[in-house]
Amino acid sequence: MTPMRYIITLGLLLITSWLPAQDKSDADVIRSLYEEALSSREAYKNLEWLCKNTAGRICGTPEAAAAVEFTYQTMLKMGLDKVWKQDVMVKNWKRGEPEQGRIVSDVYGTTDVPVCALGLSPGTGDEGVVGEAVELFSLEELDKKKDLVRGKIVFLNRPMDQTQIQTFSAYGGAIDQRTTGPARAAKYGAIACLVRSMNPALDDFPHTGQTRFENEDEQVPAFAVSTNGADLLSRQLKKDSDLKVFLCSTCQTYPDVPSHNVIGEIRGSEYPNEIITIGGHLDAWELGEGAHDDGGGCIQSIEVLRLFLAKGIRPKHTIRAVMFMDEELASRGGKVYADRAKELGEKHIAAMESDRGVLSPRAVSVATTPERYAKAEKWESLFLPYDLKMVKGGGGSDISPLRNYYPDIVYLGMMPDNQRYFRFHHSAFDVFEQVDRREMQMGAASMAAMVYLFDRYGL
Amino acid sequence: MTPMRYIITLGLLLITSWLPAQDKSDADVIRSLYEEALSSREAYKNLEWLCKNTAGRICGTPEAAAAVEFTYQTMLKMGLDKVWKQDVMVKNWKRGEPEQGRIVSDVYGTTDVPVCALGLSPGTGDEGVVGEAVELFSLEELDKKKDLVRGKIVFLNRPMDQTQIQTFSAYGGAIDQRTTGPARAAKYGAIACLVRSMNPALDDFPHTGQTRFENEDEQVPAFAVSTNGADLLSRQLKKDSDLKVFLCSTCQTYPDVPSHNVIGEIRGSEYPNEIITIGGHLDAWELGEGAHDDGGGCIQSIEVLRLFLAKGIRPKHTIRAVMFMDEELASRGGKVYADRAKELGEKHIAAMESDRGVLSPRAVSVATTPERYAKAEKWESLFLPYDLKMVKGGGGSDISPLRNYYPDIVYLGMMPDNQRYFRFHHSAFDVFEQVDRREMQMGAASMAAMVYLFDRYGL
Repeated sequence: MTPMRYIITLGLLLITSWLPAQDKSDADVIRSLYEEALSSREAYKNLEWLCKNTAGRICGTPEAAAAVEFTYQTMLKMGLDKVWKQDVMVKNWKRGEPEQGRIVSDVYGTTDVPVCALGLSPGTGDEGVVGEAVELFSLEELDKKKDLVRGKIVFLNRPMDQTQIQTFSAYGGAIDQRTTGPARAAKYGAIACLVRSMNPALDDFPHTGQTRFENEDEQVPAFAVSTNGADLLSRQLKKDSDLKVFLCSTCQTYPDVPSHNVIGEIRGSEYPNEIITIGGHLDAWELGEGAHDDGGGCIQSIEVLRLFLAKGIRPKHTIRAVMFMDEELASRGGKVYADRAKELGEKHIAAMESDRGVLSPRAVSVATTPERYAKAEKWESLFLPYDLKMVKGGGGSDISPLRNYYPDIVYLGMMPDNQRYFRFHHSAFDVFEQVDRREMQMGAASMAAMVYLFDRYGL
Repeated sequence: MTPMRYIITLGLLLITSWLPAQDKSDADVIRSLYEEALSSREAYKNLEWLCKNTAGRICGTPEAAAAVEFTYQTMLKMGLDKVWKQDVMVKNWKRGEPEQGRIVSDVYGTTDVPVCALGLSPGTGDEGVVGEAVELFSLEELDKKKDLVRGKIVFLNRPMDQTQIQTFSAYGGAIDQRTTGPARAAKYGAIACLVRSMNPALDDFPHTGQTRFENEDEQVPAFAVSTNGADLLSRQLKKDSDLKVFLCSTCQTYPDVPSHNVIGEIRGSEYPNEIITIGGHLDAWELGEGAHDDGGGCIQSIEVLRLFLAKGIRPKHTIRAVMFMDEELASRGGKVYADRAKELGEKHIAAMESDRGVLSPRAVSVATTPERYAKAEKWESLFLPYDLKMVKGGGGSDISPLRNYYPDIVYLGMMPDNQRYFRFHHSAFDVFEQVDRREMQMGAASMAAMVYLFDRYGL
C-alpha cells in the first residue's frame, strides 16, 4: 500500500474534540485508560502464561489449581487492597482417554472421525458402543421418530444458521441439540448421542460443551463430532443407511472437590461496602487453552484493576476482579460468590462479565430499567472515539446469581466482534495464538472506562 | 458458556423491523445480500486457492501471471457480460536470495536477526555490507546528525505509536522511515539503511514495503528488520556502540515486463457507459500469501458481482470488478485503468476499493462533496443491522488516478477492524489462515449493499 491513503484516517484521531466541554475531563480520563492499555504488554504476557501453563484447566484439575495460584499471585503483586481465594466445591468430571469415533460402512470402508465427549456425559467404557446412526435435525424430529431410535445412535446434525448476522444467535438456535438432545435420546432408548459441533466453519475440530441429564437413570454417552465429520457421516448415510458408528469415551463424573474463586479488590474511598464486580471464568474446556473462553476475560478483569492503579484513579465504590471457577460444568463459582456476598451483608451495585471472547470490542451492554438505561445512553458519546456502541441487555452466567439477592443490580457486558468466535469456542482451536494483544486491550480499556463512569455517576 | 445468555442476543435479529416502511424493500434486498454472502463458501475457497497457489505474486512474476489467469477464469465461469485482461507494463523488481542480517559484537557475540529487503531497493550483492549502526528515531534526527552517518548503516527505529486507536494512523506516523529514510540516508553517504518493521507486535517477522529513491545515483541497500530484531540491536548498541551489522541482499530491478489488470463486468441496463468500479490489487508482497493484502479485497470484488447475479439484481449502471496489478511497486495498474477509461470515453461515476484487509467490516467510507455525503448519510440506517457506520473520506491507491479524469467521481471504501491488521501487513504472516470466512463475507456483502444503493439512487 502507498501512504497517501493513510493520511485520511488521521482525522479520526481528533474526534475527542467533538465532545461537549462538560465531558472533557471524563473524555481525558477514558483516553488515558485506552492509551495505557494499548501501550502495555503485561496482560498479554499473563494470558500467554495462563494458556501455555494451565491448558486443561477444567474445574477440579491440577491445571485449574495452577490457574488459581497464578491469578492469585498475579494480583498479590499488584498492590491491591485485598486479594483472596474463596472456597468453592466444584463438579469433578474428567474426560479420560482421547475419544474415538469411527464410521464402518460396507460401501465406504472404515473412516475415523474427530469426536469428543460432551461435558458431564457418562463414558462408553473401553469397549465403546457400536450401532446404526439415525440422522435427525431437531428435537421435534427426534420426538416424532422416537420409535426409530431405540438401540441406535441419535445423530443430531442441524448446522448453525449461517444467515444470522450475530453468531451468538446462531449458537442459541443450535444449542438445544447439545444441551437437551442426549437426555431426550436416552429417554427414547438410544445407546448414544452424536451432535454436530456448534461451529460455523467446516473443519476437523470437535467442539465440546455441557450437556444435561435430569434423570440419572436415563443417560447415554454423548459426543460432539467435527463439522467435517458430521458432513461425511451424513453423506455416507445417504448411500448406506446400514453403516455402523463406533464411539468410545472413558469420561466419568467423580465426587465434588474443593477449588476456589480468586478475588482481588480496590477498596472504595466513599462506599467501601458497595461493590462493582468485574469478572470472567477461570475454568476452561481441556481441548484447547481457554484463551478466548475465558482466560482472556479473566486477564481483562485483572487489567481493569491495573489500569485504575496505573492512572491513579481511586474509585468511590469497591471494585473487584473475580476469577470464577466451574462456569463450564455447573456454574458453582457464581452461585457461591452471590451466596457469600449475601451472608456478609455486602451491597452489590453492578457486575460486568467478559465471556464472549476477546476479539475487538463493538459494544457494551447494559441490563437495567429503561430509566436507568436512558442515563447510561448519555455516556455513549464518550465511546465514539473507540467506535463502541451501547446496547440494551446482557449479563453473564457467573454474575447472574447476584440478581437473586440484589434485584436492582446493573449488569454490564462486553460485546466483542463475534464473527470468528465460534470457530474457537470449546475446541482445541481456542489457543493463545488466536488472541490479538490490541484487540484484548481495547476490550479491557472499554471495561475500565465503563466501570469508571458507573463508579463516578452511578445509574 | 451456558445457553441462557444467548437468548438476549436474539432480539438483535429483529432490528430490521425498526426501519421506516419506505426503506423496507431496500432493507430486504440488503438482507438478502448478507444472507447469500454468509451462506456461501465459494469466495473463501477461491481465496484459499489464490493464497496457496500464487503466493509470491509480486508483479512481473510467474506467480502473478497465475493469479491473473485464475481470477480471469474464475470470472469467465460466472456468466458475466464481459471478462477481459487489460495490458499493463509493470515494474520488475526481484528479491533474489533470502536476505541475511547479523549483529557482530565483541560484547554479545554474533546474532542473526530477521531482515528483508525493501521493495525497489538495490541489493548489496553476494558479499553484503558491514558497518557500524547509528540508531535514529526520525528523519529530522537524521538531518541533524547527517555528519555522523557517512560510511555507516542508518538504523531507523521509531516504533508505531501504540496509543493510537486506529493502527492506520500509527502506520502513517511511522512510514516516512521506510518510504523516505533510505533515500535520505543515501544522500548523507550512509552505506545501507535498516528500518524497524511497521508492526505493532513484537515478533520475528520482517515487514517489507516500497521505498523510494528519486535520484538514481543516490541509492543504498534498504532493509526492514523484525521488531524483536530491532529491539535486540537497540539494546546491544547501548552497551556496545562499536558493534557491526552485516546485511546481505541480492534484490534487483530489471526492465519492465508486460502483465495485466483483470476485469469483469455486469453491463448496466440503463446506463451501460456509466461505470461503478470495485476492486483490489492482485499483486502481493512475496514474503507471505497476500491473503489480507490484498487477495481478500480482489476476491471480495468478484464476490460482489456474484452476489448481484445470485440475487438477480440487474444494475442500472455497469458494475466492474477490477483486479489491479502492480499496486505495491509502482501503482501502474491503477494508472493504466484510468488512462484507458479516458481514451475509450467511458464515464466513471463511482469507485470502491477494498485494500485494508478483510477483517470484520466496521464502516464504509464515502469521499465526495458535503452535499452528496449528506445524501449518503441517509443510507446509514440501512446498515444498522450490520453494525456498520458511514464515515467521510477514503479512496484507495488503485482508484485514485480516476479522479484525474473524473473530478466528480465518488470514492467508496471498506473500513474493516484494523487492530490486528499490521501484524500481517507485508510479512510472511499474511497467510490464508488469518482470514475468517464470515468476516470476509460480511465485507463483501457490505460492498455489494453500498454499490446497490449507489447504483439505484446515485449521490
